[in-house]
Amino acid sequence: MPRGWKFRRTNGGVTAAKGFSAAGVPCGIKVRKNAPDLGLILSDRTCSVAGVFTTSSAAAAPVRWCREVVRRGAARALVVNSGNANACTGERGERDAAAMAIATAGELGLDPAEVCVCSTGIIGRPLPVEKVVAGIIDAAETLLPDEAAAHAFARAIMTTDTAEKTIAVRAVIGGKVVAVGGSAKGAGMICPDMATLLSFVTTDAAVSPAMLRRAVRFAADASFNRITVDGDTSTNDSLLVLANGAAGNRRIERAGAAFDQLAAALEFVCIHLAKMIVRDGEGATKFVEVRVRTAATQKDAATVARAVANSPLVKCAINGCDPNWGRIISAAASCGARFHPARAVLHIGGKLAFKKGLAARTPIADLEAAMKHKDIEIDLALGLGKADATVWTCDLSRGYVAINADYHT
Amino acid sequence: MPRGWKFRRTNGGVTAAKGFSAAGVPCGIKVRKNAPDLGLILSDRTCSVAGVFTTSSAAAAPVRWCREVVRRGAARALVVNSGNANACTGERGERDAAAMAIATAGELGLDPAEVCVCSTGIIGRPLPVEKVVAGIIDAAETLLPDEAAAHAFARAIMTTDTAEKTIAVRAVIGGKVVAVGGSAKGAGMICPDMATLLSFVTTDAAVSPAMLRRAVRFAADASFNRITVDGDTSTNDSLLVLANGAAGNRRIERAGAAFDQLAAALEFVCIHLAKMIVRDGEGATKFVEVRVRTAATQKDAATVARAVANSPLVKCAINGCDPNWGRIISAAASCGARFHPARAVLHIGGKLAFKKGLAARTPIADLEAAMKHKDIEIDLALGLGKADATVWTCDLSRGYVAINADYHT
Repeated sequence: MPRGWKFRRTNGGVTAAKGFSAAGVPCGIKVRKNAPDLGLILSDRTCSVAGVFTTSSAAAAPVRWCREVVRRGAARALVVNSGNANACTGERGERDAAAMAIATAGELGLDPAEVCVCSTGIIGRPLPVEKVVAGIIDAAETLLPDEAAAHAFARAIMTTDTAEKTIAVRAVIGGKVVAVGGSAKGAGMICPDMATLLSFVTTDAAVSPAMLRRAVRFAADASFNRITVDGDTSTNDSLLVLANGAAGNRRIERAGAAFDQLAAALEFVCIHLAKMIVRDGEGATKFVEVRVRTAATQKDAATVARAVANSPLVKCAINGCDPNWGRIISAAASCGARFHPARAVLHIGGKLAFKKGLAARTPIADLEAAMKHKDIEIDLALGLGKADATVWTCDLSRGYVAINADYHT
Repeated sequence: MPRGWKFRRTNGGVTAAKGFSAAGVPCGIKVRKNAPDLGLILSDRTCSVAGVFTTSSAAAAPVRWCREVVRRGAARALVVNSGNANACTGERGERDAAAMAIATAGELGLDPAEVCVCSTGIIGRPLPVEKVVAGIIDAAETLLPDEAAAHAFARAIMTTDTAEKTIAVRAVIGGKVVAVGGSAKGAGMICPDMATLLSFVTTDAAVSPAMLRRAVRFAADASFNRITVDGDTSTNDSLLVLANGAAGNRRIERAGAAFDQLAAALEFVCIHLAKMIVRDGEGATKFVEVRVRTAATQKDAATVARAVANSPLVKCAINGCDPNWGRIISAAASCGARFHPARAVLHIGGKLAFKKGLAARTPIADLEAAMKHKDIEIDLALGLGKADATVWTCDLSRGYVAINADYHT
């Protein structure tokens, strides 16, 4: 896919695209009074739907429900609660996820099979389904196609997030203006049993479910699959994309310029949301881009990038603004990928730190200055091939430990 | 190998076995004045030698030197410096490692090929080889076969360790009393570029290099390969075992009762040293045993145990005394091993926390009480087969971040 496309930012998140309305209301799951914890999205016509879900073998009940909806490829609505993940909840959890779809369908006059269901929050507690159903009724009554509704939705899906995560862009596809917008939540991959990564994107592009699935897979690989806060994967991680065709472009049924343009817009939106999640990582004080270049294989490049990004020692060094290249080289050397120190070249914040087996002669003060920035680039060329991989992460701070040690179930 | 053998503890570490003398002296690498940083062990006769080394592809120069000594199978002496790892030091590092062996051999009248060389400390700085050689001369003059010398050696190999790690036991093998003793260092797998895992064990058992190699492999798998502080592997990790035959037992050349007894004693010593390393983990406030049982395969059991033991979220929960079983189940479910929540049973500190897909009815106060102990047992039965694995780890504390963020190169 060509890189470097620019997109015009626009207002609204999940309601930027024509034909979508949204709502976010409090339903009483979250302890804090009147905190919004139920979100709803409705399309005025049937959407193609595609999704990417957690690989956890303890996938939550709503994830299993959504996989079925996505397999069929068509949806009209999406309902989300925060504060309770409906994970590790057994058969009752399955029934509760279905009940959310049935209640939403009942309020909106839809088939439950057209309703995506998501949950995020504490694991292992039964969903307070009466509160959720009451919230669905409230939300259905307040659905609006405007920007305020998109923000209400974005706030309703937050858990330990400290900031709302929303973006929308416009692109011209097949001569028609198409909008792609979305919101995400997540602060650790899992945090105090109250997080997970959820991301919802809507577009008014017309696209077949098969081609949407392909575009979503590309977008996820370039965005959410490249971030790590603490290396943990949740029971509920989900990315869902709804495309309703209201823009009136010729329906995208195969590869070509229109598909590329839609895929690029989706990727842009997903990368933006993914980076917002890392910046809001639990306790994060730095945003780190780990670029691994010239690896022998794509798999090696990704393995090294992840090993560096997940190393607690590297993350602590970044927190302390310490240009500790020994930890980066050591993480790369011990992750199982092909790595020869004698061929490797490491730059930190654009400054040469290590070259072909030895410390560089760059003055330590220059490296220290590079580490003081809020955004840090770690660029490691392996000199073994042509494969590259980039991972985004944050530092590991006392704040992370405080959030995750002091929280109590 | 039969389990449950008990061994009589005895005094001395690396000098508990007959024919070994040791020394530990300051040579000026460590910044703190007069801190011992050079250790030496000498056997009065040729030893069988075996070792296990880091899998890092950036293995330090001394590791490469030792691999050659171990390949030949015979050694007389072992020299170690702390404060500088002689890692990522290129060809000069190779020469410096050889210089340590040559200086030791010269002082003691040996062949350099019989001298094991180890280094631990900061990565990427040239070894101050004149200081090290002066230290070797000092140490050679103070070699003694007594307990005080063993402790001097143990202190000389420490870096960020807060406590010396030494043990020795006696066993009767083939009618002869045999001693096995050793010392280790290590506080994070790598910590402030100043750590690594080094462990040195001596015995007066008579054993062929091939059978010693086999016993050492068993012992390492049961001990050092089962611990994790932060999941990172160092450039210098080494376990070296010297067996000089001074006990006068019939030389162990094949499998049988004598081999089993020696292997068990080695395993006992290595497990003890490994657990001391975890207890002294950087910032550690808890000792955690993660037992995974009834996994489908040995590999699955080990993968799950490591995933739970390395999860920052699980480690933070333990730090905060939070019986957060959701994080344990989630770590197990997302590590790639076969795992079905509906079959899993989790006990924390002997209390049932999760059973077959659902939270247990154990009162939360009971689980919380179990988490308040200094030693925590996490026992996860997968219900999928017969394979078990145990990993020892510690919690993740603000102290860990402080040590690793505030240290500066």
